[in-house]
Amino acid sequence: MTVLDLIKNRTSYRGKYENTIIPRSDLIKIMEAGLAAPSGCNKQTTSLIAVDDTDLLAKLRKVITPQVAETAPAIICVLTQRIIAYRDKCFNVQDYSAAIQNMLLAAIELGYESCWYEGQITDADAIGRKMADILGVPDNYELVCFLPIGIALQPLKLVNKMPFSSRAWFNGFKGETV
Amino acid sequence: MTVLDLIKNRTSYRGKYENTIIPRSDLIKIMEAGLAAPSGCNKQTTSLIAVDDTDLLAKLRKVITPQVAETAPAIICVLTQRIIAYRDKCFNVQDYSAAIQNMLLAAIELGYESCWYEGQITDADAIGRKMADILGVPDNYELVCFLPIGIALQPLKLVNKMPFSSRAWFNGFKGETV
Repeated sequence: MTVLDLIKNRTSYRGKYENTIIPRSDLIKIMEAGLAAPSGCNKQTTSLIAVDDTDLLAKLRKVITPQVAETAPAIICVLTQRIIAYRDKCFNVQDYSAAIQNMLLAAIELGYESCWYEGQITDADAIGRKMADILGVPDNYELVCFLPIGIALQPLKLVNKMPFSSRAWFNGFKGETV
Repeated sequence: MTVLDLIKNRTSYRGKYENTIIPRSDLIKIMEAGLAAPSGCNKQTTSLIAVDDTDLLAKLRKVITPQVAETAPAIICVLTQRIIAYRDKCFNVQDYSAAIQNMLLAAIELGYESCWYEGQITDADAIGRKMADILGVPDNYELVCFLPIGIALQPLKLVNKMPFSSRAWFNGFKGETV
């Protein structure tokens, strides 16, 4: 499949996963894709922890409420450091977002599905911090997202999106003005 | 080339571009890849303007100081809207970053090079706002990034990155603790 096809067919998978072991070699490939993303001033603010240990996954699931992706045989946790790139600018959100997008694409190419779980764990409940504590992550890193990795058991559903002409134009703004 | 290879070989290109016209069909494919990125709560906060009109490119170049990507035959400008996704959360930075990463990959697959220019135009000089004014972008959108699109005339240089073992681990944090 071309990258363009893969990008267009990617969707957020929230269904159940097959109970299969994910080869470490595949998890490494997905993480390598994440770390290959560009970062502002090459500060490389993103780090990753793959979890495939059953006991550890069970511990993490206890703090992820409400439960999501609870059948995933592996997850990749995304850590970020707020490192100043230049002047007062920090691009860590851009950095980890590009890394996540790369990982979502790499996962699909390898036959897996995933979903970008961020809002739920960075919210007031601070689930990300609880997960970080379980994983021994020091305070200068934030755990902002996790990606389940597994083979989908249920059909994929593409989300509805606005038409191209409402979001993309040539040589000037042609969208609706409020 | 597989997505994994493409991701690993992508790099930020800051050299000169060939003076060739980029087919509209290619610019559309790249923008479609951008708009296919996921967005927090599917809010689709990212919009795009491709510029391939020579006069308009010249006007934009006048406000981009110091000059970068001045030989690119086309650019794609990335607009964002700070739309609340849920509670007080807005994921627009994540949204446009995922869109940009998709576009960088799509551009390479089509034979072009690019570079993520953001910090320079969102800095105190507000170059992004000047570009937005030239393009007729209303105030509820921010122009946060532009991507040159063109065929590279000079060799690509991969940046040095930290080793995998300094940024990615299994089943727990194994990085250096400050």
